Amino acid sequence: MDTLAAPEDVRSATGVAAGGLTRHLADAARASRFEDLPGPVVRVAKHCMLDWLGVALAGAREPAARLLRDELVEPGSSGPCTLLDGSTGGAREAALVNGTAGHALDFDDVVWVMTGHPTAPLLPAVLAVGELVDASGRDLLTAFVAGFETESRIGAAVAPGHYDAGFHATATLGTLGAAAGCARLLDLDEDQWQHAFGIAATSAAGLKSMFGSMCKPMHAGNAASQGVLAARLAARGFTAATDAIERPQGFGPTHTATFHPEAGQTPFGDPWYVREVLFKFHAACFLTHSAIEGLLRLKEAEGLAADDVDAVLLRVEPGHLAVCNIPEPRSGLEAKFSLRFTAAMAVLTGRTDEAAFTDDVVRDPRFTTLRDRVTVVPEPGRPAHETDVQVRTRDGRTLRTRVDMQQWAADDEIDAQERRLVAKFRSLVGTGDAAERLLEAVLRVDELSSVRELTRLVADVARAANGAEGGPA
Amino acid sequence: MDTLAAPEDVRSATGVAAGGLTRHLADAARASRFEDLPGPVVRVAKHCMLDWLGVALAGAREPAARLLRDELVEPGSSGPCTLLDGSTGGAREAALVNGTAGHALDFDDVVWVMTGHPTAPLLPAVLAVGELVDASGRDLLTAFVAGFETESRIGAAVAPGHYDAGFHATATLGTLGAAAGCARLLDLDEDQWQHAFGIAATSAAGLKSMFGSMCKPMHAGNAASQGVLAARLAARGFTAATDAIERPQGFGPTHTATFHPEAGQTPFGDPWYVREVLFKFHAACFLTHSAIEGLLRLKEAEGLAADDVDAVLLRVEPGHLAVCNIPEPRSGLEAKFSLRFTAAMAVLTGRTDEAAFTDDVVRDPRFTTLRDRVTVVPEPGRPAHETDVQVRTRDGRTLRTRVDMQQWAADDEIDAQERRLVAKFRSLVGTGDAAERLLEAVLRVDELSSVRELTRLVADVARAANGAEGGPA
Repeated sequence: MDTLAAPEDVRSATGVAAGGLTRHLADAARASRFEDLPGPVVRVAKHCMLDWLGVALAGAREPAARLLRDELVEPGSSGPCTLLDGSTGGAREAALVNGTAGHALDFDDVVWVMTGHPTAPLLPAVLAVGELVDASGRDLLTAFVAGFETESRIGAAVAPGHYDAGFHATATLGTLGAAAGCARLLDLDEDQWQHAFGIAATSAAGLKSMFGSMCKPMHAGNAASQGVLAARLAARGFTAATDAIERPQGFGPTHTATFHPEAGQTPFGDPWYVREVLFKFHAACFLTHSAIEGLLRLKEAEGLAADDVDAVLLRVEPGHLAVCNIPEPRSGLEAKFSLRFTAAMAVLTGRTDEAAFTDDVVRDPRFTTLRDRVTVVPEPGRPAHETDVQVRTRDGRTLRTRVDMQQWAADDEIDAQERRLVAKFRSLVGTGDAAERLLEAVLRVDELSSVRELTRLVADVARAANGAEGGPA
Repeated sequence: MDTLAAPEDVRSATGVAAGGLTRHLADAARASRFEDLPGPVVRVAKHCMLDWLGVALAGAREPAARLLRDELVEPGSSGPCTLLDGSTGGAREAALVNGTAGHALDFDDVVWVMTGHPTAPLLPAVLAVGELVDASGRDLLTAFVAGFETESRIGAAVAPGHYDAGFHATATLGTLGAAAGCARLLDLDEDQWQHAFGIAATSAAGLKSMFGSMCKPMHAGNAASQGVLAARLAARGFTAATDAIERPQGFGPTHTATFHPEAGQTPFGDPWYVREVLFKFHAACFLTHSAIEGLLRLKEAEGLAADDVDAVLLRVEPGHLAVCNIPEPRSGLEAKFSLRFTAAMAVLTGRTDEAAFTDDVVRDPRFTTLRDRVTVVPEPGRPAHETDVQVRTRDGRTLRTRVDMQQWAADDEIDAQERRLVAKFRSLVGTGDAAERLLEAVLRVDELSSVRELTRLVADVARAANGAEGGPA
């Protein structure tokens, strides 16, 4: 039960790094600089922050986040890092509680390459360590992008076997992404970077089979917290295997049957995975989004109204049936996992924000009548991110559209994306003074001299919410 | 990327639990009482505590434990739980630092059924929670046995694929064992027990490929800390899937290709796995122990002396060659993984305690001369826990013995085991007043009204060691 595995130090004769995936990611993330980030990358990174802050501030009121806060933070105690309820604590505790808050509503961003939520495990970690070291806004953005690109590349290397086997990639890959973001802020040296990845790799955990319980959001918090610990321990001289991701029985080989390390060994920028991020504008299962978006388009383009609808046909990938096809939901939470009900909401009011999913709405006859006109058709071979939407109207027309949710915003769509994200933020956090100041600060975070300017505003919003000043709409 | 998996509640019509492995373990551990533990189980559980305290108090001085202490515990801060260096902290921090200390020397106990170290992840967790709730010594023993029996049974259910695949069972199964021990101390209700297992199952991590780095001992600390968190969160109402070990894509199916849940569904006592624990009396890789023990027996039974030895032949399972066959070690640490060198130590001095493995000894000609007379022969099919030892003497005799390290102490060998463990404890912790008081308290822990009586003595020993009073031999 003991082996002595000497960490390898792989270098070419010229001193140029010639290692595997771990070394590649360490080198790329360590070398990343704000000045090298293209404008659209910086803007979309800000969008990730804005989106996360909105869902996390609202999510901090959810039971999973509150129970963790109660467990980890003594009443009246204080620490260097800001929690989203306005209290303070240590960096690991802030990362764990805030990380859980950010995923509690399941309303945070997504990137397909990691089959998961990229910001949820990463941003709370870099915010906490950013406060510790008093990082600038540019340092924070650089660290965030470094973590995002890292976790995405590991996602490319372990896909699709990792997620298929049952691992919650947000948790596992997120631990490595968080470690990378924190390592960037702590400016670790070359060896320390690899040790940080090693410590993170051997601490990464999270099972998809926990979905439906409070463990799902906690996975993001655990990942954030373990990422903070990994980077800080490495800074102190703690050691791990230095090729932890790709070595025999390392993270990759033990966690996927389809490990292709070379798929993750692309330079940062080739591509920028941050540009592939997708935001949720509907507070429901992501797999319902293409149907909702399709119906919203038909309303806008064809003037479709609820009274016009005779029947709706949704053709989806068959896997959806087990995930988001509760036919007659009995609660607001169940409605989030109902293709038929979310389709009715899209047609009737177009409102699918967090506040729209009440326990009352599922009994409202206007919604249930429309819900019963929707049929979900499983279609083998259709991609998971796409729905074919067909509407038969009472006057005999057939309207049809197909929405592919793998389409991220093009450069000329970034302004429009920002407007939607601002509206989403306001719907979650409210429109009080504190909320507006935070909103404005996030969109110019690269001008802030200190992360603490941002987190002070976060604490203001939390205090205002506790005092009900300009609370959520 | 979202599913709504409703936790199942499986019961028979009579209300009697009829669930799977998770429910079985929760029921058995929850129902366990001190009064039901046979005398030899109680005595051997005390032996686990004594052994762990010795290796952990010595291990607290190792870099892995010190770096974690520096990271987690602010100088001058205090908390309800005792760290092995005499400082105090929160329960999670104490479990993480102490857990790492207990495995830092790799000198702690072993049980084959879990292919790992049972006490290292478990005892620091129940000690910390025991201090929190001011448990009695009997409660502590009961919780320890419940955790031990739990992690062993999960080990039986996931063997051999789990360890073979690359997972460090001490870390992964230890997280579940620690959660069980803490759940017993917190007296969780039936549902909370299952949630505690779920939270632990989705937090369990640790890779064998980290062996040789500080991550190996940290695995035990992480397991202890996550076990504490799982039980305490469950006590607060945090939820998880309630059949986390056996459910589709649960801990078992995702972490082994050979999952046999029924192998873990035996009642406590059938067997008592605590009775199968093995202690290390040599501060070297466990796989060297059968060779060392064989040579010690020949010394005792045949009066073998170093000068008599012409040649030593060790027949071992071929896997040993990659684990503990450094032929000419250059440091005390390497000597621990050298069958040839440890054999020489056994013959020459019989001393293989922690202090014997110095960087000087590997250069001592008396040892190297003998070392060079040892030949290691790989023999396919020989069990890993067994070595065939053969000595040819200068006067032409051939002495031979075979030692099987899977043989745990029979009831009539428990006294002898205790004498060896007392000697080991003294060699690690010293023979000062504080150490002797702690030793005596551990052996009558079932008479203590509070765990804190024990941990006060631990702190005394740590302070005495810091002041060098009666320090380690």
